[in-house]
This record gives sequence, C-alpha cells and structure tokens, in this order.
Amino acid sequence: MLTVLQIDFPFNGPFGEEMSQAMQPLAESIITEPGLLWKIWTENAATQEAGGVYLFSDASSAQSYLAMHSARLAASGVCDIRAKLFSVNNPLSLICKGPLQ
Amino acid sequence: MLTVLQIDFPFNGPFGEEMSQAMQPLAESIITEPGLLWKIWTENAATQEAGGVYLFSDASSAQSYLAMHSARLAASGVCDIRAKLFSVNNPLSLICKGPLQ
Repeated sequence: MLTVLQIDFPFNGPFGEEMSQAMQPLAESIITEPGLLWKIWTENAATQEAGGVYLFSDASSAQSYLAMHSARLAASGVCDIRAKLFSVNNPLSLICKGPLQ
Repeated sequence: MLTVLQIDFPFNGPFGEEMSQAMQPLAESIITEPGLLWKIWTENAATQEAGGVYLFSDASSAQSYLAMHSARLAASGVCDIRAKLFSVNNPLSLICKGPLQ
C-alpha cells in the first residue's frame, strides 16, 4: 500500500541554492533507498525548518527508512524530528491529480 | 515559488473505500482551487488521523487555501488541525524524482 512519510525538523540552514549544493550527494543516495518512489525536499527559512515529503511503495519500506533517516539526522545534530506515516487514499488522490507513480 | 502544504488532524473515519465515497464531491471541488497542482489524500486508521499533502504553484495560493480549508474543517467539527507550509527545494527534489508539475 502506498505510504506517505512526512518529516520536518528545526533547521538553521543552509537554505536554497546553498542547501542544494550541500545536500546533493545525500539526495543522490536517498533516491536509491528501497521502496522509495520519490521525495520532495522542503525548507522554510522564515520558520527555520526543513524536511521532506516521501512516497513509498509500501509501509514497511517507509518505516525502515524513517528509522535509518532519523538516526542519521540525530547523528548530524538535528533534534525534535517530527515524522508521520500515512496510507494514501488512492481514488481521492487520483481525482486531485496526486502523483502516485 | 512551489509551495508544499502539509495538513493533518485527528479523524475517526470513515477510512478507505468509505472515505473515498464520502469525500468524492469534496475532492472534485478541491482540484479546482486556484494555484493547486495536486493533492495526495492521507489517512491512518491506526492512529485515527487524516490529512493531505498539497503542491501549490505559489505561497500566496497555499496560504489562501489553508485559511479557507481550516475554516471548513473546523465547521465540520475537526479540531487540532496541524498545518505547515514549506518552499520546495527544486534541484534536490528533482534528483529524488519529486513530482513538481
């Protein structure tokens, strides 16, 4: 079952172009994770937050990724990580042009 | 600038197929909202939560939608709505196959 993972956390930068450059190797690694269909990288310089929205092919892959990624974030000094897992309602999402593949 | 809106809230159903049927008219309305590119409908029967991940073409459309939708949810009895707005980091999202269109 398609599973959405929402992660966000306090983050004091870099944002924007600098973030793109600093995190490029991490992004190239993340897209190879088992079960991951896509990730949108999110950032908010005004509120000093960053995170991501992920679509996984199944709940188990999403849970494994969350455990690994939370440990990686914590190791890099990020705390107060907020994460939520959801099933996707496919018919309603398709009406709303949701990118499920 | 592309803007992600994350919304979730406590919800005691219906979930799954029943939710799809009950919410179909709302989904057909939501996809006509100004600036909305897509919405993925999210649900978690185990934690009794539901919500959505939205991609808007710009921050202003996302803010207007959030104000309208929060009022609509509150009017239907939903409280404790958690909502977050984020800019999208396009280069990192594209590396991760993020559906930005």
